[in-house]
Amino acid sequence: MQPLVGIIMGSKSDWPTMEHAAEILDKLGVPYEVQVVSAHRTPDLLFDYAKSAEGRGIKIIIAGAGGAAHLPGMAASQTPIPVLGVPVQSKTLNGLDSLLSIVQMPGGVPVGALAIGKAGATNAGLMAAQILGLQDSKIMDAVKAFRKQQTDTVLSNADPRQS
Amino acid sequence: MQPLVGIIMGSKSDWPTMEHAAEILDKLGVPYEVQVVSAHRTPDLLFDYAKSAEGRGIKIIIAGAGGAAHLPGMAASQTPIPVLGVPVQSKTLNGLDSLLSIVQMPGGVPVGALAIGKAGATNAGLMAAQILGLQDSKIMDAVKAFRKQQTDTVLSNADPRQS
Amino acid sequence: MQPLVGIIMGSKSDWPTMEHAAEILDKLGVPYEVQVVSAHRTPDLLFDYAKSAEGRGIKIIIAGAGGAAHLPGMAASQTPIPVLGVPVQSKTLNGLDSLLSIVQMPGGVPVGALAIGKAGATNAGLMAAQILGLQDSKIMDAVKAFRKQQTDTVLSNADPRQS
Amino acid sequence: MQPLVGIIMGSKSDWPTMEHAAEILDKLGVPYEVQVVSAHRTPDLLFDYAKSAEGRGIKIIIAGAGGAAHLPGMAASQTPIPVLGVPVQSKTLNGLDSLLSIVQMPGGVPVGALAIGKAGATNAGLMAAQILGLQDSKIMDAVKAFRKQQTDTVLSNADPRQS
Amino acid sequence: MQPLVGIIMGSKSDWPTMEHAAEILDKLGVPYEVQVVSAHRTPDLLFDYAKSAEGRGIKIIIAGAGGAAHLPGMAASQTPIPVLGVPVQSKTLNGLDSLLSIVQMPGGVPVGALAIGKAGATNAGLMAAQILGLQDSKIMDAVKAFRKQQTDTVLSNADPRQS
Amino acid sequence: MQPLVGIIMGSKSDWPTMEHAAEILDKLGVPYEVQVVSAHRTPDLLFDYAKSAEGRGIKIIIAGAGGAAHLPGMAASQTPIPVLGVPVQSKTLNGLDSLLSIVQMPGGVPVGALAIGKAGATNAGLMAAQILGLQDSKIMDAVKAFRKQQTDTVLSNADPRQS
Amino acid sequence: MQPLVGIIMGSKSDWPTMEHAAEILDKLGVPYEVQVVSAHRTPDLLFDYAKSAEGRGIKIIIAGAGGAAHLPGMAASQTPIPVLGVPVQSKTLNGLDSLLSIVQMPGGVPVGALAIGKAGATNAGLMAAQILGLQDSKIMDAVKAFRKQQTDTVLSNADPRQS
Amino acid sequence: MQPLVGIIMGSKSDWPTMEHAAEILDKLGVPYEVQVVSAHRTPDLLFDYAKSAEGRGIKIIIAGAGGAAHLPGMAASQTPIPVLGVPVQSKTLNGLDSLLSIVQMPGGVPVGALAIGKAGATNAGLMAAQILGLQDSKIMDAVKAFRKQQTDTVLSNADPRQS
Repeated sequence: MQPLVGIIMGSKSDWPTMEHAAEILDKLGVPYEVQVVSAHRTPDLLFDYAKSAEGRGIKIIIAGAGGAAHLPGMAASQTPIPVLGVPVQSKTLNGLDSLLSIVQMPGGVPVGALAIGKAGATNAGLMAAQILGLQDSKIMDAVKAFRKQQTDTVLSNADPRQS
Repeated sequence: MQPLVGIIMGSKSDWPTMEHAAEILDKLGVPYEVQVVSAHRTPDLLFDYAKSAEGRGIKIIIAGAGGAAHLPGMAASQTPIPVLGVPVQSKTLNGLDSLLSIVQMPGGVPVGALAIGKAGATNAGLMAAQILGLQDSKIMDAVKAFRKQQTDTVLSNADPRQS
Repeated sequence: MQPLVGIIMGSKSDWPTMEHAAEILDKLGVPYEVQVVSAHRTPDLLFDYAKSAEGRGIKIIIAGAGGAAHLPGMAASQTPIPVLGVPVQSKTLNGLDSLLSIVQMPGGVPVGALAIGKAGATNAGLMAAQILGLQDSKIMDAVKAFRKQQTDTVLSNADPRQS
Repeated sequence: MQPLVGIIMGSKSDWPTMEHAAEILDKLGVPYEVQVVSAHRTPDLLFDYAKSAEGRGIKIIIAGAGGAAHLPGMAASQTPIPVLGVPVQSKTLNGLDSLLSIVQMPGGVPVGALAIGKAGATNAGLMAAQILGLQDSKIMDAVKAFRKQQTDTVLSNADPRQS
Repeated sequence: MQPLVGIIMGSKSDWPTMEHAAEILDKLGVPYEVQVVSAHRTPDLLFDYAKSAEGRGIKIIIAGAGGAAHLPGMAASQTPIPVLGVPVQSKTLNGLDSLLSIVQMPGGVPVGALAIGKAGATNAGLMAAQILGLQDSKIMDAVKAFRKQQTDTVLSNADPRQS
Repeated sequence: MQPLVGIIMGSKSDWPTMEHAAEILDKLGVPYEVQVVSAHRTPDLLFDYAKSAEGRGIKIIIAGAGGAAHLPGMAASQTPIPVLGVPVQSKTLNGLDSLLSIVQMPGGVPVGALAIGKAGATNAGLMAAQILGLQDSKIMDAVKAFRKQQTDTVLSNADPRQS
Repeated sequence: MQPLVGIIMGSKSDWPTMEHAAEILDKLGVPYEVQVVSAHRTPDLLFDYAKSAEGRGIKIIIAGAGGAAHLPGMAASQTPIPVLGVPVQSKTLNGLDSLLSIVQMPGGVPVGALAIGKAGATNAGLMAAQILGLQDSKIMDAVKAFRKQQTDTVLSNADPRQS
Repeated sequence: MQPLVGIIMGSKSDWPTMEHAAEILDKLGVPYEVQVVSAHRTPDLLFDYAKSAEGRGIKIIIAGAGGAAHLPGMAASQTPIPVLGVPVQSKTLNGLDSLLSIVQMPGGVPVGALAIGKAGATNAGLMAAQILGLQDSKIMDAVKAFRKQQTDTVLSNADPRQS
């Protein structure tokens, strides 16, 4: 099936974080592709990837990176489709560097930043589905069902003292 | 014209920041509505606003707030449409509090955070257009034209020593 | 017995922190209730909870949350009774995000913030008792006895080299 | 009239911040007293003040201080009545030092911290009224009226483009 | 022997840090006393301790504390002898809160702050010896010998690849 | 004269900072070129610039940028010559975002970061001269003369009370 | 008169901060000397200064510096007399860089750090007097008189509403 | 072979970080020397080392240090050859103190700072090779080959799901 979301990350070591984006897309029935693309080690590949994304039918790019996290912003510089950025938790500064490198983009080239780490990756996938759901009612229904289930799970586990 | 984007903010004092979101939407021909909705002072209004947004034809909510910035996240809790958050620069902590309050959402309820302040507001508007452009080629063309013009402006002003 | 304090938290995973609030209330003989209420996953429940609290005889709400911690502030937006907020230590930013999200409330809707983590949960319970003690001398006596015992414990263990 | 709230601050220069606590108490009809008490320059006065507060009929202490802000915590160490702390914005670190010095109290001696600066001072006064309102319906009614007016003000000024 | 340095700490749990101050004083032949004194749990003891220190022949107080670390500053408020502060590494904020609570004292009541944790405790002991060495040549000679030995140890281990 | 250093910056507004790099190169007799190249608005230009730099005889690139400062790192990804990065002071976070975005590069693609702002720009120019001086004794002599003069200026102005 | 305290600073621009150290020493009758000594621009002078200080009768060095503030630590590396460090408020990071560069010394070479800016300079002077007062009762009496006057000033200005 | 790069570090405990600089220099065929030189414990050795480096044929100094990391800046103060600084991850503040102590040098004495920890050490070695490669085509070829291999490794491992 034609992938609608492109999940890229700067390094294989980002996968344990970024797989949560893939997981939620799987759950919501959104086709996607996954690739390691390093802004710094494979800059030409990144540009090719980002420039060709729209033409290849990709609607949204989810880019995860840590430290001096340039991947989301540089992808955004080469495509008009929305780019979501996931700050991967860095070893020394806990992802504060990743977050600031991703979110503080200058006016004119947006990246939508999610939370640092696993929650951010999950939410990047979910937000991609919400965006796609604007024109695909099946995906929007899946989003709503997921959200409802999530609410029900909390409601039916109201007592924190029970495991 | 049916507004497609809802721009909300926690206080009238956020308007000098948030007007930059409105400005870029004007430039790109995207209809929008603007309203002060305080998460803390008018919580019921916020819930009504967010719950009814999808039904009223709103496709994307842009929410700006400062300090303990709960507006974007609480809007997101009540709607399946995408919510973009703009951290307004706060007086004491320069917007770092706003940014963390907006971006660090738990897995399951995403907010796409933009940069602190004016650049973030501009980019929220631009990203809303990019999202809408996925299903509206006229808006996508406007985005591309804006991006091209922006690039040309830099290219034709390459010498920083000339004013 | 009619609970006087409502302890709520955003997730079951906050319980190992928040149980310290329950523990001190037990020790001081203050009846309380405990519930998982997520600002983001069960926003309607949160509003129902907060709106009905005063009418149900709850005098103080203790709300614990981590990351973009909106629970205390949103509870406070819906009730005139005092709300105490406990920043739960977050995985990536150690609770600095939780703290700022809780404490930096705008003028008009207060949340009294305690320390990050276990100490803050204990102190939220203790402060709730101090507040209730203003009109219930039995609780105030229990607070004073606890404080005296705590002082005595330090005084009788003055030599740090003895275990 | 017997003051119910004691507003203290480390220095006269904290008054432009702390007067907002006094202002809201005036508005809500809560009698209070105001005094400069420095933890570092007049430690004995601070201890006398805090030790005698309960006996003198004070129900709540609001303490504002900046930098290494020890005033709220040291007042709390000498009284069983609730202490609210207002981090005054410091010159070099914008009040982050004040906030951490106030909020990070060890388990056993709570201080309820409010936001840095003016908003925090207002909210300290408001929270004091909320606490007193638990046993004084006139004060609670004043709190509710204030909150309602505040909500109405936002509702009637929904358009940020109108001044 | 008459102790010349008083080492105090807010909690028994600070001893694994503060014992490094004791250890270096032992090494340099400086007599000292050690006591747990909590600013928040035993404030009267703290005041008695600090007020009586000079009269009891104590020349320097070394105070270690974590979190909202008020011990060094409050000791300094009650004595004209020099107070050195050791920020103990806190669980949630790594001691940044401890450091700011200790070092950001207002003009008029100094505390000399050392590094966070073990290095700071060692250096507090060493600095106490340097101060005492100004009037006691035997202690100054011990300091110089320690410093020389420390230099020699580095010089004789210049190759980091050898264990 | 063949420029040896390429000074690039993300925006014309960075010039008041970056001109200090040009100024010191002028003083030391090092030929250079200056150009606005935006990583985000003109990414292709950046890649062309960086890829062609070595071939055009450029020995060192000095790149200044603020906020999510991707310019130095992305230039470094496309050239084997040394890249020095100058964090321009950003409006909201004072350049801490710029600094972390520049300095926290992953292993394999280095950027040498200088101080935030004007001092960093001056030092980038000076360090470029030091690097070139390794193979050009005239430039090294100019560096040494500049350093000596700088030392002499401090030595002859030892009394801070004289203006 | 033989100076007992050596006040040094990295740059003439630090004088508006450091003159507060001189001012309090004047007030307390402690003779001192003042000199600009830059760790980075005049490293040999710094070493000569620090190495000769003890022999020249200097008892305490007060060193003020901003940014990468190496002056206090490097002075301490060359003398056994106590060194007090004053973090001068830096332009971009408000003195947090200065503070960390001064206070985080490794075990074995202590620097006693004071608060950032003017308060820190005042307190460095005051602490120097407290240290000297351990062996000079005239200075200790001056310290006590200053502290008493300071307390009296607060006590006689207890009402913050009176100017 | 005549060493071209001098790797120094403040303590033997920095070697697990700094060995990554040595490793990459080995890989690129750049001769180097390694030595423990402590700014604070062996200041005279540091000055001798830095003053004599150029004369001994050293072209670049790589200095690694943690905490109040003065080694790179003080080495730079004594030599006209380029100095690269590696912030070693500190125990309490994760290397943020190390980074700021190294990078925030005043105008006139540059240090090129790399990332905190292992990545920074690797990149310091790589950047030294890039600088040497400007005059030694064999080294530049080795740099290019390393960079190409690094790119190829990413390209041939594009699928993060395969181990």
